[in-house]
Amino acid sequence: MMNFGLMGFGTVGSGVYEIISSGKAGKDYNIKKILVRDPSKPRKVSAPGELFTKDAADILEDEDIKLVICVMGGMEPEYTYIKQALSLGKSVVTANKEVIAAHMDELLDIARSNGAYLYFEASVGGGIPIISSLTDLIKLNTISQVTGILNGTTNFILTKISREHRDFADILKEAQEMGFAEADPSADVDGYDMMRKISILSAIAFGNMVDESNVIMRGIRNILLDDVLAAESYGYKIKFLGQGVRSGEGFNVCVEPALIKNDFVVGNVNEEYNVIMAQGDLIGKLCFMGKGAGKNATAEAVVSDVIKVMSKTDEYSSIKLKPANSEGARFEEMHEYYLRVSFNGYYSLSNTLDKISSLIKRNKIRVYNNMLFMITEAVNDSLMRELCGQLAESGRDVFFARIENNVL
Amino acid sequence: MMNFGLMGFGTVGSGVYEIISSGKAGKDYNIKKILVRDPSKPRKVSAPGELFTKDAADILEDEDIKLVICVMGGMEPEYTYIKQALSLGKSVVTANKEVIAAHMDELLDIARSNGAYLYFEASVGGGIPIISSLTDLIKLNTISQVTGILNGTTNFILTKISREHRDFADILKEAQEMGFAEADPSADVDGYDMMRKISILSAIAFGNMVDESNVIMRGIRNILLDDVLAAESYGYKIKFLGQGVRSGEGFNVCVEPALIKNDFVVGNVNEEYNVIMAQGDLIGKLCFMGKGAGKNATAEAVVSDVIKVMSKTDEYSSIKLKPANSEGARFEEMHEYYLRVSFNGYYSLSNTLDKISSLIKRNKIRVYNNMLFMITEAVNDSLMRELCGQLAESGRDVFFARIENNVL
Repeated sequence: MMNFGLMGFGTVGSGVYEIISSGKAGKDYNIKKILVRDPSKPRKVSAPGELFTKDAADILEDEDIKLVICVMGGMEPEYTYIKQALSLGKSVVTANKEVIAAHMDELLDIARSNGAYLYFEASVGGGIPIISSLTDLIKLNTISQVTGILNGTTNFILTKISREHRDFADILKEAQEMGFAEADPSADVDGYDMMRKISILSAIAFGNMVDESNVIMRGIRNILLDDVLAAESYGYKIKFLGQGVRSGEGFNVCVEPALIKNDFVVGNVNEEYNVIMAQGDLIGKLCFMGKGAGKNATAEAVVSDVIKVMSKTDEYSSIKLKPANSEGARFEEMHEYYLRVSFNGYYSLSNTLDKISSLIKRNKIRVYNNMLFMITEAVNDSLMRELCGQLAESGRDVFFARIENNVL
Repeated sequence: MMNFGLMGFGTVGSGVYEIISSGKAGKDYNIKKILVRDPSKPRKVSAPGELFTKDAADILEDEDIKLVICVMGGMEPEYTYIKQALSLGKSVVTANKEVIAAHMDELLDIARSNGAYLYFEASVGGGIPIISSLTDLIKLNTISQVTGILNGTTNFILTKISREHRDFADILKEAQEMGFAEADPSADVDGYDMMRKISILSAIAFGNMVDESNVIMRGIRNILLDDVLAAESYGYKIKFLGQGVRSGEGFNVCVEPALIKNDFVVGNVNEEYNVIMAQGDLIGKLCFMGKGAGKNATAEAVVSDVIKVMSKTDEYSSIKLKPANSEGARFEEMHEYYLRVSFNGYYSLSNTLDKISSLIKRNKIRVYNNMLFMITEAVNDSLMRELCGQLAESGRDVFFARIENNVL
């Protein structure tokens, strides 16, 4: 009998319990204890009452339990539990992106020095096997880019704006009523969720932990239906992207709305689907696409990791990590940008155009419904931020998004 | 020092040699012997002359060589060499789709009973890690479908027809002059290459070897620019697809042109790119996309397998195979079809319409330039073949293609 401790019994945790107790993964796999906040709470998925505990020590101090499955979410107490388990030589499988994005290097070190395994496939892209593929790729390739649509909720919202020609706020509200978006949508729409996922992928790809403060992050709260329509008229889709790019020793990580040409595959990944593209010097561009969330897909990824631990495969041995440096290793990137500025009457328009001309070359301008739309020439991010900052100061509503050409 | 024997020094073989001798994969990896037909032939990639041999025994009988890399192509003598190597307890990494499609079950058995490993990631999809992902997926999922664009040359041709509005024959000729298509294009355009690849994926996914004679195969030689334009006017792209579908104990494998809605991802995989979609009961639909050929991408896949052998990972332990059965396990599938029939004047048109009506319901008919175009209701494959056979008998030029809705 292989005994596991399960920490968390929410959507993913109960899915993991169902798969493991079905015997599909291994006939001798057994969940011995389940850590929950309230053992007496009624649950959709039932498990024998004696399995539940609210004391983590029942798992961490049980010598029979060689593997702990952590699917609770949030930084604490999960970070502490994972550290304790690994220090005690217990292997850990987790779906916790927050803990992994911040502490992957430390936790892998503790695992390695205690003869334990740490696996976290389910932390990025749900059931898409991106972590195991990426750990394989870095053995032979220098990865120059990882780019992805890594948040299903915002991709669902953007797809609906484009298909139903309705406003962001309207669709967000509907998604919240359907329970598809959180009451506080910030983690999704402001980019925190995607920031953690792209930080994990970038760290593995570039061999360097990513400091949150170095991630350029801009959400999609102020996107208008007009932006989606204007982008379409220019031949683009607007997608919410996470991206890590390397140039020599430098690397940039960003989470931003971006425009992608209609005939690129990444621009056609719709609804709640996720996609990750990795580019390596030998392999070229590779794309992985699938459901980024959902009970079964995520639980499958967790249990796949459990199987790897039990077969004593150290699939992550290729991951080498330098610590994050808040000083950063950023380099200058040049992109074309889509820009939308609201104005008020002729004077305001001419004033807006002057402001733009003072910093960048005017290009492909369209004016419609008191809004000015343009596609810039290639400029760097800080110039674009400066321009949009100046435009916004005078009360203009401004939206801009990078044009992403280097995808599949 | 880890000594390998390399069989074949063409595009992939020389790429493998370059990666291994660079030390990237492992500092102690060493190619000890290279089997070629003519050791004195001048080569683009140079290797010390004493490495070359034309006697396979120099590799197979060398006890220092624990791993043989087979990248020669064709069934014989490679099948015999692989069998001999495995029987002697030597592990084998191969890119040979012909040998694997026909003998995967036998060769895996020989490997397992001699404590050796057999890896063949590069046999399907070049650098796309589809075999390792699929062997992982089948541990927990019941796979209902594997579908893919698995031939770069034909996808390149179809993309050009659609983008440049030129005829198939014209573009094939250009591709041949560029050295991108073979002088004898049959393996690509008639589907033999894709048939082997989809047979390998289907065998792994469904746990059953595939008999060639059970694969429904129809190439794209008779496709017209008019078909591509007609499909586009209906809102579809025409792609050359390989597909394995399971229903209960039955499974169908086919290689055929198919129509895919514009907004599906698979329909937007263009140029020489390959894509594979797998659908599992837990994981849902997963897509993998990348370059399906090319020296570096394929050589990378081969060397990744070498690393797996050296780390003694039995990643394919999940593959279980029943033998192929020429009686087949086919079940009835229903699809809508795109149909194009040439006719000659009014009488011929009315005659053609009568013929169609006698077998299937007429639907969405368009007539243009002495050709009739239609999208049928859902019918089964044999009815469609019967109809098109009857139409062709009277000298009409006929093209039909399944409409594929169950993709990403």
